[in-house]
Amino acid sequence: MALLTREAKGVFAISPTPFDEDGAVDFDSLRRLVDFYESVGVTGITLLGQMGEAPKLSHDEATRIVSQVLQWTRLPVVVGVSAPGYAAMRELTSDVMAAGAAGVMVAPPNTLRTDDQIVGYYEGVAAALGDSVPLVLQDYPLSFSVVMSPKVVARIARAVPSCVMLKHEDWPGLEKISALRDFEAAGEMPRLSILCGNGGLFLDFEVERGADGAMTGYCFPEMLVDVVTGADRIEESHDIFDAHLPLLRYEQQPGIGLAVRKYVMKRRGLLASDAQRAPRGVLSSRARAEIDYLLARLGRLDKRANLVA
Amino acid sequence: MALLTREAKGVFAISPTPFDEDGAVDFDSLRRLVDFYESVGVTGITLLGQMGEAPKLSHDEATRIVSQVLQWTRLPVVVGVSAPGYAAMRELTSDVMAAGAAGVMVAPPNTLRTDDQIVGYYEGVAAALGDSVPLVLQDYPLSFSVVMSPKVVARIARAVPSCVMLKHEDWPGLEKISALRDFEAAGEMPRLSILCGNGGLFLDFEVERGADGAMTGYCFPEMLVDVVTGADRIEESHDIFDAHLPLLRYEQQPGIGLAVRKYVMKRRGLLASDAQRAPRGVLSSRARAEIDYLLARLGRLDKRANLVA
Amino acid sequence: MALLTREAKGVFAISPTPFDEDGAVDFDSLRRLVDFYESVGVTGITLLGQMGEAPKLSHDEATRIVSQVLQWTRLPVVVGVSAPGYAAMRELTSDVMAAGAAGVMVAPPNTLRTDDQIVGYYEGVAAALGDSVPLVLQDYPLSFSVVMSPKVVARIARAVPSCVMLKHEDWPGLEKISALRDFEAAGEMPRLSILCGNGGLFLDFEVERGADGAMTGYCFPEMLVDVVTGADRIEESHDIFDAHLPLLRYEQQPGIGLAVRKYVMKRRGLLASDAQRAPRGVLSSRARAEIDYLLARLGRLDKRANLVA
Amino acid sequence: MALLTREAKGVFAISPTPFDEDGAVDFDSLRRLVDFYESVGVTGITLLGQMGEAPKLSHDEATRIVSQVLQWTRLPVVVGVSAPGYAAMRELTSDVMAAGAAGVMVAPPNTLRTDDQIVGYYEGVAAALGDSVPLVLQDYPLSFSVVMSPKVVARIARAVPSCVMLKHEDWPGLEKISALRDFEAAGEMPRLSILCGNGGLFLDFEVERGADGAMTGYCFPEMLVDVVTGADRIEESHDIFDAHLPLLRYEQQPGIGLAVRKYVMKRRGLLASDAQRAPRGVLSSRARAEIDYLLARLGRLDKRANLVA
Repeated sequence: MALLTREAKGVFAISPTPFDEDGAVDFDSLRRLVDFYESVGVTGITLLGQMGEAPKLSHDEATRIVSQVLQWTRLPVVVGVSAPGYAAMRELTSDVMAAGAAGVMVAPPNTLRTDDQIVGYYEGVAAALGDSVPLVLQDYPLSFSVVMSPKVVARIARAVPSCVMLKHEDWPGLEKISALRDFEAAGEMPRLSILCGNGGLFLDFEVERGADGAMTGYCFPEMLVDVVTGADRIEESHDIFDAHLPLLRYEQQPGIGLAVRKYVMKRRGLLASDAQRAPRGVLSSRARAEIDYLLARLGRLDKRANLVA
Repeated sequence: MALLTREAKGVFAISPTPFDEDGAVDFDSLRRLVDFYESVGVTGITLLGQMGEAPKLSHDEATRIVSQVLQWTRLPVVVGVSAPGYAAMRELTSDVMAAGAAGVMVAPPNTLRTDDQIVGYYEGVAAALGDSVPLVLQDYPLSFSVVMSPKVVARIARAVPSCVMLKHEDWPGLEKISALRDFEAAGEMPRLSILCGNGGLFLDFEVERGADGAMTGYCFPEMLVDVVTGADRIEESHDIFDAHLPLLRYEQQPGIGLAVRKYVMKRRGLLASDAQRAPRGVLSSRARAEIDYLLARLGRLDKRANLVA
Repeated sequence: MALLTREAKGVFAISPTPFDEDGAVDFDSLRRLVDFYESVGVTGITLLGQMGEAPKLSHDEATRIVSQVLQWTRLPVVVGVSAPGYAAMRELTSDVMAAGAAGVMVAPPNTLRTDDQIVGYYEGVAAALGDSVPLVLQDYPLSFSVVMSPKVVARIARAVPSCVMLKHEDWPGLEKISALRDFEAAGEMPRLSILCGNGGLFLDFEVERGADGAMTGYCFPEMLVDVVTGADRIEESHDIFDAHLPLLRYEQQPGIGLAVRKYVMKRRGLLASDAQRAPRGVLSSRARAEIDYLLARLGRLDKRANLVA
Repeated sequence: MALLTREAKGVFAISPTPFDEDGAVDFDSLRRLVDFYESVGVTGITLLGQMGEAPKLSHDEATRIVSQVLQWTRLPVVVGVSAPGYAAMRELTSDVMAAGAAGVMVAPPNTLRTDDQIVGYYEGVAAALGDSVPLVLQDYPLSFSVVMSPKVVARIARAVPSCVMLKHEDWPGLEKISALRDFEAAGEMPRLSILCGNGGLFLDFEVERGADGAMTGYCFPEMLVDVVTGADRIEESHDIFDAHLPLLRYEQQPGIGLAVRKYVMKRRGLLASDAQRAPRGVLSSRARAEIDYLLARLGRLDKRANLVA
């Protein structure tokens, strides 16, 4: 399987982990998801991210999920391997790279504060995982409380040659994309593939700022693909983005966002169940009605959202 | 001037503080803002909030701003008086209540952690300010890092009789509104007026959940008024809300949100300058072009956004 | 092997994990440590705590360390199993309980804020691990940023019957011990064994307040035993405690504390090497000279500290 | 009055603010304190620090306290002026410098994260206060959650010429002192006076590492003077430090530390009352008995601690 490169672009779909009502991993739904992602034109799949309920999986479950997906698809697969220590990170990385993963993604522990601490942490990651494993730097201050200035991202890019991609989910983050592309143009850092997360909330402008695409798990990845590939159809890109924004915003709520996503994916027929393992956010009947209402409104503007009730 | 009550509803506009290019308070623009707010149907005005750059004002400037606004309007005026200690809070409260303010708003210091610490803090506030000063509880975990469960809000409402309003900006927060209204229905807490902040990002559903309105500073308060007063025109409310959502989301970015707001208000002719005092977020030319683009798109759906270039 | 009970008392030594200069687990030194702990009168051993470098161990290394120690000693062994999710926690717990551990210790994830979140987390832990696994609640706000009021500890004790011990390392914490013992006397919570951590910095008074002993890793556990068993010799207890306090304080520094501890244990002949796995705190030559100086001064008051240079 | 310089040394006593039982500022006790500080050989006084209950004082009270103390003493007086915004900071600075203060001390707001944010904040402080006001940089991560690497301190020292002193209370912090002195020796930053806070918990070694003295409020400043001036009597310095360490440690507890300090100062006859304004930590009778016990033990080693019961 090809390794992740600095030239990666498009949409890497962050896959949820399907469970059945008893809490077992639902591999049938996972297969369906993978086929779906391929059918809508994503260019990669990300497994075991935070929204993949990775901490709720045993090591064996985690590696089996990765192995199965790698047997089903030829798309590059990125695997989240964040862990409190380098040892567990190395174990999982070793297993998933052997199975054919394209690279691994590492979020910073939320105790890091100074610039040097952050850079040093990623130097340690690379030393622990080995130089040959492509690394995705996850920059998500809202969730991890670690704030990386553009200069720190540039320092990491210089100091860690295996770091080839930035999962960009700073907020606000548009200027950061511009700053990084300016650094690259000035020869101050090697190029990084920049894929945007943060639920896609600013994807309409992120692409225009120079991002290579998206890495997020919004329940209609078709829209993400539309926007990322629509650089020469600006108005149409904004139209489809804006049509989805009310639902996208609703899905992006901390704590219950994954419940929203799984609920819609179940309604779309992709997941047999929207069950999560504990701890989980739960949708009230009022919340489900609100989502149904948003879907109905969206269906008028994007026929792909016309779901059978 | 009438005091704030538990029955308050509608839209309380959080006013920015206008400065001229030299950094002096621009009272002409402030007057224009107050007239504008009245003209669009807001039911109250909030001064010296975080988005009012309160910490950048001297005590004299702050009290003069409040006094002036109170001379210009008969709308109830809420004043932000958050401070690291009760002494400064009491001084400012005393001055603004004497000038005719309807109540004061207090955010929690970000060192509070346990339920008891939070409740105790607001008991201390009431003891410091006196029972006769109507108090607005500001619940904004994203900004203050203080997390109040619905039970804690209910405890504060019971323990602090002068607390009559919740500025609700938890995220996600829809279930919290429902939980509080359920508590009230069950007789477990006195009624609070609930006005929603958080930039208005969920206002479409917050009103349906039982909120009494909005307290936020979005650059088109007309839309907030439309949504809050549109309870019997659900589809139309969502239509106008959704039309504004791309811009609203852009304005709600931490750090640069106020720069966006002031830029649009300047373009609307409300502010003579979009200057902020330091420390300030600054808009790049790319950012201004993005805002202009969003305004142009919005203008097609809401003619009030058709601004002269 | 007997399970941990609410009546546990004495000193549970938190063992460091010995490594050789190449970073491999040094089982010879570990054996020596266990024999040493038994020889000085500790009543239990804690493995895989934060100071045991647990996150730097692979799952296999962690379980092998526990198995080996359990073959060498009949003392009750508590194992740290904190993990970002319940799945990994359950896996490790299952393995170490099968090997004969007396119980497991769980620290709260540092995202918990409200009282309900904290109680709910430990209810979830008990549900994940099963009711038959004795649980040690680790209350260490300085390190984990989670603040538990005495009422929250009492709620956990009531809601989670398998929780039998509190590792108490709040700071300040003397009043918390008194409050918990008062709750117990009033029948408001079941008894917990309270063993004090926080480097032992307040052990002199903690015992007088009602703690059952210590669970910490100070490099002279003999002193901890002296203080914990010296309840009827108050002055002597304080004398020996005060003699060690300068070194104890030096060892308790965040970040480099473990380096200090391993350095002294190497000088005492207990560890073949003071190596740590990355990331690690490193002692400068000035720091080592300071420790040597403190040891020399201590040696005049406690002959057990008269080490060969 | 002379301004603070980079050559400042000795002990700057952080004065508590005395209140009477009704909560009024007790100027008689304050006068007594100032006389006492002079009598024991301190080289400066710090007012309105966190331990001076500054946030509980009105602006008028704060400025009156500073004015009074400046009339009573010729020692240099540093005033804490930390505030949420530059405006209040500038107002207080202007007033106290006009009254004769030697300089002001500013702690960082706890929202700062990146190196650039921290440096930028202090550049903004200097711009707000003016270049002629000597500035003390307060580096206290345990209390403010802002972590400054030695490189950041050096950057501030270079970027802000008016910054002449570091109040050093990082923990652990010995290596930071050495690193800063090494930077100075290498010409990479201008000299800073380094006075150590953190309750004096590491003062014995801080002086040996190159600190110029202490700025803290321990209830026996005589000991601080002994240690700081005892560089040529190393053993005696450690003896007196170690004798005080059990009490010093007890006083250094967060939350109740000031209550301990005021209690001892009252027992010493320096304060008429140990009252604090709300919010306050309160000593239980058990805590007071513990302090009395520590004082009795200390009195055997340091006759200055032999207090009348």
